Amino acid sequence: MKIAVVMGSRSDLPVVEKTLEMLKKFGIDYEARVLSAHRTPEEALDFSRNADKNGIDLLIAAAGKAAHLPGVLAAVTTLPVIGLPIKSSTMDGLDSLLSIVQMPTGIPVATVAINGAENAGILAAQILSLKYPELKEKLLAFKAEMRDKILSESYV
Amino acid sequence: MKIAVVMGSRSDLPVVEKTLEMLKKFGIDYEARVLSAHRTPEEALDFSRNADKNGIDLLIAAAGKAAHLPGVLAAVTTLPVIGLPIKSSTMDGLDSLLSIVQMPTGIPVATVAINGAENAGILAAQILSLKYPELKEKLLAFKAEMRDKILSESYV
Amino acid sequence: MKIAVVMGSRSDLPVVEKTLEMLKKFGIDYEARVLSAHRTPEEALDFSRNADKNGIDLLIAAAGKAAHLPGVLAAVTTLPVIGLPIKSSTMDGLDSLLSIVQMPTGIPVATVAINGAENAGILAAQILSLKYPELKEKLLAFKAEMRDKILSESYV
Amino acid sequence: MKIAVVMGSRSDLPVVEKTLEMLKKFGIDYEARVLSAHRTPEEALDFSRNADKNGIDLLIAAAGKAAHLPGVLAAVTTLPVIGLPIKSSTMDGLDSLLSIVQMPTGIPVATVAINGAENAGILAAQILSLKYPELKEKLLAFKAEMRDKILSESYV
Amino acid sequence: MKIAVVMGSRSDLPVVEKTLEMLKKFGIDYEARVLSAHRTPEEALDFSRNADKNGIDLLIAAAGKAAHLPGVLAAVTTLPVIGLPIKSSTMDGLDSLLSIVQMPTGIPVATVAINGAENAGILAAQILSLKYPELKEKLLAFKAEMRDKILSESYV
Amino acid sequence: MKIAVVMGSRSDLPVVEKTLEMLKKFGIDYEARVLSAHRTPEEALDFSRNADKNGIDLLIAAAGKAAHLPGVLAAVTTLPVIGLPIKSSTMDGLDSLLSIVQMPTGIPVATVAINGAENAGILAAQILSLKYPELKEKLLAFKAEMRDKILSESYV
Amino acid sequence: MKIAVVMGSRSDLPVVEKTLEMLKKFGIDYEARVLSAHRTPEEALDFSRNADKNGIDLLIAAAGKAAHLPGVLAAVTTLPVIGLPIKSSTMDGLDSLLSIVQMPTGIPVATVAINGAENAGILAAQILSLKYPELKEKLLAFKAEMRDKILSESYV
Amino acid sequence: MKIAVVMGSRSDLPVVEKTLEMLKKFGIDYEARVLSAHRTPEEALDFSRNADKNGIDLLIAAAGKAAHLPGVLAAVTTLPVIGLPIKSSTMDGLDSLLSIVQMPTGIPVATVAINGAENAGILAAQILSLKYPELKEKLLAFKAEMRDKILSESYV
Repeated sequence: MKIAVVMGSRSDLPVVEKTLEMLKKFGIDYEARVLSAHRTPEEALDFSRNADKNGIDLLIAAAGKAAHLPGVLAAVTTLPVIGLPIKSSTMDGLDSLLSIVQMPTGIPVATVAINGAENAGILAAQILSLKYPELKEKLLAFKAEMRDKILSESYV
Repeated sequence: MKIAVVMGSRSDLPVVEKTLEMLKKFGIDYEARVLSAHRTPEEALDFSRNADKNGIDLLIAAAGKAAHLPGVLAAVTTLPVIGLPIKSSTMDGLDSLLSIVQMPTGIPVATVAINGAENAGILAAQILSLKYPELKEKLLAFKAEMRDKILSESYV
Repeated sequence: MKIAVVMGSRSDLPVVEKTLEMLKKFGIDYEARVLSAHRTPEEALDFSRNADKNGIDLLIAAAGKAAHLPGVLAAVTTLPVIGLPIKSSTMDGLDSLLSIVQMPTGIPVATVAINGAENAGILAAQILSLKYPELKEKLLAFKAEMRDKILSESYV
Repeated sequence: MKIAVVMGSRSDLPVVEKTLEMLKKFGIDYEARVLSAHRTPEEALDFSRNADKNGIDLLIAAAGKAAHLPGVLAAVTTLPVIGLPIKSSTMDGLDSLLSIVQMPTGIPVATVAINGAENAGILAAQILSLKYPELKEKLLAFKAEMRDKILSESYV
Repeated sequence: MKIAVVMGSRSDLPVVEKTLEMLKKFGIDYEARVLSAHRTPEEALDFSRNADKNGIDLLIAAAGKAAHLPGVLAAVTTLPVIGLPIKSSTMDGLDSLLSIVQMPTGIPVATVAINGAENAGILAAQILSLKYPELKEKLLAFKAEMRDKILSESYV
Repeated sequence: MKIAVVMGSRSDLPVVEKTLEMLKKFGIDYEARVLSAHRTPEEALDFSRNADKNGIDLLIAAAGKAAHLPGVLAAVTTLPVIGLPIKSSTMDGLDSLLSIVQMPTGIPVATVAINGAENAGILAAQILSLKYPELKEKLLAFKAEMRDKILSESYV
Repeated sequence: MKIAVVMGSRSDLPVVEKTLEMLKKFGIDYEARVLSAHRTPEEALDFSRNADKNGIDLLIAAAGKAAHLPGVLAAVTTLPVIGLPIKSSTMDGLDSLLSIVQMPTGIPVATVAINGAENAGILAAQILSLKYPELKEKLLAFKAEMRDKILSESYV
Repeated sequence: MKIAVVMGSRSDLPVVEKTLEMLKKFGIDYEARVLSAHRTPEEALDFSRNADKNGIDLLIAAAGKAAHLPGVLAAVTTLPVIGLPIKSSTMDGLDSLLSIVQMPTGIPVATVAINGAENAGILAAQILSLKYPELKEKLLAFKAEMRDKILSESYV
């Protein structure tokens, strides 16, 4: 059980850290890389093209602005690709979101919320739980934990 | 291998049909239902709550406007939920997209493009291929088919 | 005369406080709760389903991002539900607004402005004044007070 | 039990008709008027100012573009005002929505979806049900009817 | 030669100050008032209705969010009304702009940029210059001054 | 009393016709021209630069997309310039509106609604009425006519 | 003198035809291809990577929705890439525009208007005119022709 | 080899500095000027009209809000004009972007990202490399440098 977390720029790391923490929480092994669809296209494509045979089950790709990385990785693999739009200094994340989610027919990207880094990790766990049932228990526990946290301080 | 395709209104069916066709193409068994987060909340929640034990591997939920269905289904299952935003008569689908993709921390929805019905089906196949490797061959064939179609008429 | 004020996350409380203050100003008894449509769906639904028989006249629901809480509460009660969109860190509140106001036919939510917390309380008082005429006097006094405040410093 | 339905222009009537049908369905007596915040400001204000003493319980105001009518009516009454944004030929209804919902502190308008005409009527019924309990039965029946309609054709 | 500058809230004054400074620069007498379309509708309407007979040549109206003030003033006068959209804490001024500029047929508001306070004053001077030709010289001088300022530091 | 109506393209004429009709209604003499800020910049600038000495009192400029015409004309005259944003085939008029209304400090354009062609004419009449008082009577009559039209069919 | 015109889908051709006509008008030789960043990533990259050595001076890339093609081609060439955003069935072209223009630092795309197909061709001619001065005469003639056309029917 | 960098206001300089640095990096001689389409229209037009004969190969124009400068310069030259939208205090740069990119047929502006100052310089180098092949080497080195920088710290 291993996933790849790819980000388009090292400046995305403060957001992506929350994805990595969530993966650790679920005990999911990951490889985190900075690879750019525009500055290192060959390496990015090679990484994705070889992901399956390198034992990767799923990719998470984070990018901002004209965020092409998730779609470009998805082009050369049949593994599911989760897209995490990063809010940049203009357009409040709308450019990142639309560049990731509005993929043309044939090449989907499973998009989560703008800066929704934790959710990228949780969605990865949900997808992996189809193959690795031990994750299902952890997800149920996580849901219960969230529920308990809210209920423990529900009264204002 | 079975998935559930839920839509919030029968009026979503013309778009969702393309999801169903894609699932047939990949040989994925599905149960398609109209269930509304607002008009049949109990039934919708029950459906999702029992999906796992009923042998469902994954849910696809299509909805428009203030599109709560994917998020509400995701609240009560650990199965992955794919959200398909349906364009309605106002706001050009932006309301549907934001209502589905901007999920709060803890409950992700794997969102595809506005009216991206085929992609909802393809993403389902990609996710299921983790557990059912026979789908991987079909996905590779599908990618090759798309590629061949473009290359066969690439010259203008 | 009692209303319920429900928020999707404790982080909404700084905004919602202004609703509570307004309710106090009008002498409206309230129960304030943190309940999430996604993290505590059963409790949220139960709360709303039982609100009427528990003597609640009206619900105010505050939520941000893909803000499903007001719509989900409205699904299981015939009481009026006031929706208060909370501005989050991305999209400047547009996602919260559209997720709350663009409800499908059959299940309305009475939506106020983004972060319009005082107005949620005032609207509650206006609605309750149909049943509790003593509120009408208070609303007239409040209107006069606003008017006097502006007129007292109208000259620049 | 009587409400007023005011629209800013006769061209809004095709949308507003659905509000009127919903009110008839709930047996709510109404007075429907075309009154403009800009072309007949005195009459519009007088109408709202006298609504309460004329036995009106609640106002529904429909308007498009820079839709000031709901806010202007709300300025001179303590009755609840439901705002119905009408989609016009430009901006896809966003201008109408923002002009109605983004009311400043002190003067709320209970806003429903763009062209959400039925919901304006249903919300009126919900609000009136606080004072006229017979409406509660009708609302429960309406909810049951919506539920049954969906469940009767839930299987695709 | 006199104009009225009306703002919907005292909180608009820091922006509107720049309008007042511009009017002083052009030697235009003004009366500045805080009057709200929603909190003091009668006073606002009376002010505009009587503006012409009180020797006012033109009105400038500044407001934010669901900014109805310019349109409401314009409804009851034939004097030109300049609308100044004020950026508020949400929606980046888009709500204010659309609420002011998208006026229905029959009641125009001469809208300037979001927070374009100086321009409201300059536009007033341009309009008044039709009647008071001495302003034309001042406007020409102002244009020359702007030009000189840029040219004096044009080389980077 | 004469105004100039300039449009950036002959394709704007169907919208601008309504401006011309309104000017005729108010008995305002006009010169209507197609002149482009981009395709005939010298002629457009010359036209505006000489407008004042050619007896023009005011300019109306209509343009779509990156609508520079109103601002460019305003750059070389002290006459008031009314900007009329034309909706084009993409972006629903938002590009035209922002390109016209968001003018930088120093060069205002009096902007009316997207495709608000009648209002451009009415605003021109209001501005001219400062200098030509006979227009005031016509404007009052026009307001009365609008009012009567609405009141004559106010009851639905 | 040769350029490449690449489009992401054959459905873009009706818009791109206007680019091709403009290139013919300027006597610019071109190669037009359908190549997708997502469905034929290797071929698209190879095409761009070899463009320079194949005698291509410049690339025009047209794409819609999450329009990655221009950016992906730009990643592997130092030739200028002109991006032409194609309006698709949702979001009115905003998604295409932002996905093309908001490129991260290092990899620019020279973006023209949504569906601005003629302008893509004209911009190509302007850029090529640096190297092929004969194009300058044609561009001057084209500018004169546009000017004459407008002036010949300037009077309305 | 020389280019002109024109900005509409001295306040744009902090952003434009990054363009100038990039030009220095590529060894491209430039002339940087503050010239406004609205405050110094004649000088701006003269500058662009004479650019070609003054040995300028290409113009970069930076402007914010209703950003007319790039389009106005492009109107009077056949040289390529690169447009750099500057984010101002409202509308998050969307007004600047649309005012620059949505140019009408006939007069293209090669638009880069909002505040994409480096990319304006890089695009200039790419365009100039058609005529000055020594730039091609520098661009290849720059691409390699970007690639190496990412790969050197690719592992997280």
